[in-house]
Parts: sequence; structure tokens; C-alpha cells
Amino acid sequence: MHGIIVRAAAYVASIFSLYIAGAMLIPAAVDLYYGHSDWQIFTICAVTTGAVALTVAAATRGRAPVRSTRLAFFVVVVLWLTLGVVGALPIYAALEVSFAGAVFEAVSAITTTGSTVIVGLDDLPPGVLLWRSLLNGIGGLGVVVLGLFFLPLLNVGGFSYFQIESSDIEERPFDRLASFLRALVAIYVILTVLCAMAYAMAGMSAFDAINHAMATIATGGFSTHDASFGHFEDNWAILWVGTVFMILGALPFSILILFVVRGRLDALRDPQIRLFIAYTAVIVLAIAIHRRVVSEVPFGEALTSAAFNLVSIITTTGFASEDYTLWGPFAVVMVFFATFLGGCSGSTSGAIKAYRFFVLGRMLQNGLRTLIYGRSVQPLRYGNRTIDEEMQRSVVLFMIAFFTVWVGGSVLLAANNLDIVTALTASLTALTNVGPGLGPIIGPAGNFSTLSDYALWILSACMLLGRLEILAVFVLLTPTFWRN
Amino acid sequence: MHGIIVRAAAYVASIFSLYIAGAMLIPAAVDLYYGHSDWQIFTICAVTTGAVALTVAAATRGRAPVRSTRLAFFVVVVLWLTLGVVGALPIYAALEVSFAGAVFEAVSAITTTGSTVIVGLDDLPPGVLLWRSLLNGIGGLGVVVLGLFFLPLLNVGGFSYFQIESSDIEERPFDRLASFLRALVAIYVILTVLCAMAYAMAGMSAFDAINHAMATIATGGFSTHDASFGHFEDNWAILWVGTVFMILGALPFSILILFVVRGRLDALRDPQIRLFIAYTAVIVLAIAIHRRVVSEVPFGEALTSAAFNLVSIITTTGFASEDYTLWGPFAVVMVFFATFLGGCSGSTSGAIKAYRFFVLGRMLQNGLRTLIYGRSVQPLRYGNRTIDEEMQRSVVLFMIAFFTVWVGGSVLLAANNLDIVTALTASLTALTNVGPGLGPIIGPAGNFSTLSDYALWILSACMLLGRLEILAVFVLLTPTFWRN
Repeated sequence: MHGIIVRAAAYVASIFSLYIAGAMLIPAAVDLYYGHSDWQIFTICAVTTGAVALTVAAATRGRAPVRSTRLAFFVVVVLWLTLGVVGALPIYAALEVSFAGAVFEAVSAITTTGSTVIVGLDDLPPGVLLWRSLLNGIGGLGVVVLGLFFLPLLNVGGFSYFQIESSDIEERPFDRLASFLRALVAIYVILTVLCAMAYAMAGMSAFDAINHAMATIATGGFSTHDASFGHFEDNWAILWVGTVFMILGALPFSILILFVVRGRLDALRDPQIRLFIAYTAVIVLAIAIHRRVVSEVPFGEALTSAAFNLVSIITTTGFASEDYTLWGPFAVVMVFFATFLGGCSGSTSGAIKAYRFFVLGRMLQNGLRTLIYGRSVQPLRYGNRTIDEEMQRSVVLFMIAFFTVWVGGSVLLAANNLDIVTALTASLTALTNVGPGLGPIIGPAGNFSTLSDYALWILSACMLLGRLEILAVFVLLTPTFWRN
Repeated sequence: MHGIIVRAAAYVASIFSLYIAGAMLIPAAVDLYYGHSDWQIFTICAVTTGAVALTVAAATRGRAPVRSTRLAFFVVVVLWLTLGVVGALPIYAALEVSFAGAVFEAVSAITTTGSTVIVGLDDLPPGVLLWRSLLNGIGGLGVVVLGLFFLPLLNVGGFSYFQIESSDIEERPFDRLASFLRALVAIYVILTVLCAMAYAMAGMSAFDAINHAMATIATGGFSTHDASFGHFEDNWAILWVGTVFMILGALPFSILILFVVRGRLDALRDPQIRLFIAYTAVIVLAIAIHRRVVSEVPFGEALTSAAFNLVSIITTTGFASEDYTLWGPFAVVMVFFATFLGGCSGSTSGAIKAYRFFVLGRMLQNGLRTLIYGRSVQPLRYGNRTIDEEMQRSVVLFMIAFFTVWVGGSVLLAANNLDIVTALTASLTALTNVGPGLGPIIGPAGNFSTLSDYALWILSACMLLGRLEILAVFVLLTPTFWRN
């Protein structure tokens, strides 16, 4: 039984690796075009990966196993691990980083976290930069697929929007899935292209625009410059383009599909979208007004920088246009808590996400009423749907797992002698797939290059856990999972 | 209807104030004995309080209202507010502190938090010192009564041990309550006396022993010295006496009653006691071993200091024998997370408490199993009892409220320009009733004297919220509560 699951997962992973190997030819071509010798590295990595993948595929080929929950969990985790390790190969080969560093960089890319161990991005050859952005983009698309189609079915974090169109599903489930998937990929690519065009019109070079567009829609956060958007700091147009497209990337793609394909404007009135927009607006305005009043920064500037940098954190993108930790304690504490938030489920964004806060808020509201009146019979509402017991349980389960990992990660990092602010925010920013942390080392002006390999492994694990909504990985660690 | 509740609460509060006025005569007598002029201040405060209380009592006297959940919530909150404000009067009159500072000090005492705004404790007259310790002791006893008798009945945090003896309750509920209450007060006083004797035998002066004993059993944490237990630092016997009695104070008093009165040793096998002892032991040993290995501190010293200071934090006492923030990042991060823990419910200790972690752990365990197998039918076990839906809901409700207050408090403090470590740990240590926070201002070597009145009011609110398990106060803030 376990043998079959492992074999099937290895087979799927090897086929998947073939696609990744194919993707490596894109940076190879770009480096060749720009006359940089790295094209050889990418080609060798592609050929090697392809050869190994074919061998594994041949060895593990066989009858498809019965579809089961266990198989689904196992395959999901194996695919993300594969993408992380294979994606790291060209980085390890092309740059002077440790293997832990290369895996960290690749995992940071595919989980759309955006933390980097590389210093001197501005001087890197285009191939490696494009590879990082590509992984960001692929990861973002993968996350949306995961969040819309797989995790809700496994009852792990994620809010299924299928129910909106439940009649369609019941009639022809797979037709519907395939058309949904095509629409999703189309919208994802269109959004990325639109974002790139907007960046270019706002003043970015074509290469920068393409790279940053992939990192923006994926809420990934990788930049082609050490200074991230600080490179374009006096260009407000670029910052606002980024702000708008980060918000789009943090909306549920199923809702975007309904909106674009069917013109259903009412879809945007979803409770989690409203909540996400509401807390983002409150935090941005609070910081902008605070800076205007206390530090006497002109309001336009305060608003632009607060909007870009806080939207970047809340959507779990991780770009920075300046070192916002210099804005004073109020902004720093807001940034800290904003790191927990996230956008909507079914988007590219990570962290706890708006729908969970919505459910928790309703539970609190209802719970207090129950304390006064005794047993409550009122069901919890989410728009015109009901938040059932199972959904509440799943949200609570995630929160318990989330804080467990955060505490564990922080303690392990502190054991590596990282100060409290660095330890707490490094594990947090990894787990929420945000990118930058706080403090002198990993703050928006710093990066992860000085951390030990030990710390990078822990953070890579946190990023993957966060991206897979933790529970999908936790399940694999229970003895129950491996019992027959 | 509301008029009746408010009147009844005012009446109960005025009767309660008479007792507090009576208690003020104790420090008055002590100051008179030691020949310190403060005896006049305490006497004036006692007479004034008594007069006002009698007036209010006369004005609000009347037929007892129908017992209701609303009345219970309202009376509990009013009583604690009364104790805080009336307890602050002699402090405000005797010392040079602002009114906000005096209320903070009194609220810190009655909530058994132990944070102080007073610098120069060693030079204070005995009356004020004793008053602080008395408030600590009264608060501790009040918390146990609240936690054992009131909050569980209101479904707010607290684990009712009545069910252990449910047959007794069903037969003669009030006889049983009265005898339970007598046993509780007796054991509380006996433990305090034993603790004072042990401190005295270990080398404390009689006055110090009495004061610290009251603060120890209450897990309150007020000391008669600025250096707290640093004053006795090279006396390991005192540190170990403190460690043992802090642990006793953090055990459920109902269990202690069963143990002492009925000799039921098996009562100590309660799951939350085991969990509390387990996480305390793991944290203390981890820090002791880490310091032995990394800093080469002799193991006996490392163990003694880790045991005293970490037990002090976990039990939410707040004594310190040295500045443990100098032990390096690992210890600091452990201290930070230890601040969330707390002892057992039905004890004098605050914070989240072991039984909630037990319930959350069981929910996680069960939830992961459910993800694999689908809907679970297994009930959650707490020893040989079942953790029902209502208990799970109540724990989750508390956690949501806890983090809401922590975030709110931290943001409000940061708006007052406190750095992130101070802002996050000040609100946390107040909410969990621990005492010291982290960072240069409110760390174990610092105190709260330099904080603004604004910050002190916020922290006083956090301490009261924490002490009343948050929800008992939140309920009063809902519109539902005030609706007819």
C-alpha cells in the first residue's frame, strides 16, 4: 500500500521535473541571447534533470493507484519538495552559495516568499534573475491551483468557491474543472502581461518589467535589484502600479474568473475580499496619517510609501521601496502584525488570510452572545452561505498548527544565537511567505545571506509548511498517516 | 432592569469596600508599631473609604435582584474595578506617583501581576510595602474563588473540578460550596504561613518572609526590594523555597483540597497538572543545559537560576533573581514564549494556562486524524472525562479574545513610541499577569516607572482583562449585554 503511494508520487514528480527541465531552457536562451556563459549551466542542468527524470519515470511507471486522501497529501508535498530541490540546481551551479542557500533561494521563490540570500542582484547575469522570477511565477500559479482545487477538497485551509456554481460541478465535474483551470491560467498570464506593460509604461526597462510582473502577480517579491523597489523610489507611478497589481494577486482567482469571464461584479462583494480591503486600508491610512502628523512627512509621500510597503507585506509579496523600520515603533509594530494577515484564500498570497479572520471574528461575536444567552442556535454566516462546524474546526486547527510552527521555528533560530526580533520575525516571515522580517539582519534593508546553513534549512522548512497550509505537511508526520 | 443590576452591583461593591477599608488598618497598625507617620495616611484612607462605602451602601440597599448571568458578569467586573481603585488610594496618598501610577500599582497587585512603578522599594516604610503584599494576597485568593466558583459557571475560562464530586453538589449545593470555600481559605492561609516560615528558615528577615510569602502563593511577584530576589541572589535555599511554593500556587486549589483534606494523591495525576509540570521541566532544563554548554555556567547554578526565574514566569509570578535577558537569545525567546503559558486553572496563576493547551493539543491531534479518515467520532479525552464541544468552543473563544487584546494593546503602546520589544512584551506581560517584560525599559532589571500615564492606563486595562479571563469583560462591551 505505502509502496504504491511512494511509487506513484515518484512518477508524478519525475514527469513534473521534465517540465521544470524544459523551463530551464528559457533562462538558457536568454543568457545565450545576451552572450553570457551561464547558458551552458542552465543547459547542463536541464539535460541532467531531464535524464534523471526520465530514468525515474521509467522505473516508477505502472498502473495508477486508487485515488485516496493519503495519495493526494503525499503527492502535493513531494511535488513542492521536488520543485524546490530541482529549482535550486541552476542557482547552486551558477552562484557562489551553499547548497542550503540555493535550496533556500529556490524554496523562497516557489513558495512566493521572496527572501533572498543573494547579494549583488544588480550585477547578476539575466539568466539567473529570470530563473528566480520564473520560479516565483510558477510557484504563484501552483499555489492558486493548490488553494482552489486541492486543499479545500482535503479540508485543509482554503475556501472552496466551487459551491458558488455547485450545479455545474454536480453535472459534469471534470469538464468544469478543466475549463476552470484553463480560465485560471489565462487570467494569471494576462494579469502578468498587463502588470509588465504597466511597469514598462511607468518607466521600468523591459527586462525589469517582465521580472517584477511575475514576482508581483505571484505576490512573490523577488526583485532584480538589491534595493528592491528602492531602485525606483522616486517613481511613484511604479509604486502605485505595484500596489494595484499586488492587491489583484491577493484576490481569489476564482472570483476574478467570475468577474472577468461572466462579468459578475457582485462576486467582488465577497466577505473575505471586503475584510482584506478593509484591514489593508485601515493599516495603510493609520501609518500614513501617523507619519504625516508625527514625522511631518508630506501626506502624498506618506500615503504612497505606506500603501506600497504595507500592501507588499499584507499581500505577502515582500517588495520594499525603503527601510520602513526607520518610520518609528508604531509602523514597526503594525508591520509585525501585518505579517500575520495575508490576502484572500484562492490567491497567490500566504499567511493566515482574510477568510480565517472573518471566521474567527464571527466565532468571537457568536461566542460572546452565547455566554449571555446560553446555548446559541444561530448559524454563523459568510455572506449568504453558512460557516459550518467543519469549516470552523479547520480554521481553528490551522491556527493551532500555525502558532506551533512559529514557536518551534523561533526557538530553533534563537538556539542559533539570533536575537529575539530576528528569530521571531524570520520564522514568521518564512511561515507566512512574506519575505522581509524586522531587525538589522533580515529587515527590509537586509537579507538572509549571513544566516547559517542550519537557520536556512529551518526557514526553508517554514516556508514550505506555510505554503502548504501547514496541515498538509503535518498530516504526513502523524503515525496515523503511515498506519495501514 | 439595568437599573437594578447597577444598583445591586454598587451595593455589593460598597460592602466589599468596607472590608478593604478594614484591611487598611493592618498597614496602619504596622506603621504605628514601627513609628512611621504613614499610619495616619492609612487611617484616613480607611475612614474615608468606610464612610463613602457606608453612604453608598445605604443609598443602594434594597431587595436582592433575581440572580442572572448578566448580574454575575457585571458584579465580578465592578468588584475588581473597586478593589483596584480603592486599593490605589493609600498608594496615591503615601507616595509620589500619579493617579494612573497608583491605580497601575494597585491593579498590578490585585491581578497578581507584580509589575511596579515604584523605584526605591528598599527605602519605603513598612506600611506601604505590606499594603502592596496584602493586595497581592487578597487578589490571589480572589482569583482562586473566581476561577473555581464563578467563571466556570459562566462558561468563561476555568475548568470546573466540581464534577469530580458531582454527587455532593447535587445533594446539598450550598452546604458544599460553603465548606469548599472554608477549606480553600484555610489551605490558602496555611500555604502562605508555611511559605513564610520556609523563607525565614532559609534566611529572610521576618518582615521580608511574610511579604514575599503573600506574593509567592498569590503568584503575585511584588517584592520589598528593587532587586526582587536578586537581593538574596547567593542564597540558593531562598530561591528553591520560592520555586517550590510558586509551583504550589500554580496548582488548582480544588486539587490541593482533595489532596490535603481527603489524602487523595491520585488527584495530582490531573492532565493539566502533568502538562504544566512537563512544560516547566522541559523549559527549565533546556535553558540550564544550554547555559551549561554554551556559556559554561556550573550546572547547579544554571539549574537554580533557570528554575527560579522560569518558574516565576511560567507561574506568572514575576520575581527575578537576576537579569536573565543577559543569558543570550535562546533564553530570551524561551522567556518570551513562557510568558504565554501560565499554570493550572483554579490556581492563582494567569495567562493561557495548561488546561487550554491540553485542549488545543487534543484538538490538533484529533483534527489531523480527521483529515485522513474524514469525520471523526472519537470524543476528546481529558483524563477520564470528555472535553465536550462547549469546552472546546470556550477555549477557542478565549484564544481569539487573548490575541485580539494582545495586538490591540501592543499597537496602542507602540503609538506611544515604545519600541517593538517593549510594546509587545508590556501588553503581553500585563495580559498574562506575569510582571516583567523584555527589553531595556520593562525587563527584569527595569520597571514601569518611566512609562507615560497613557501607557499605564492601557496596561492596567490589560491586567484586569487578563485576570478576568478577558471574556468576562468583553461580554460587558457587547451591545447584546445591554439590550433588554
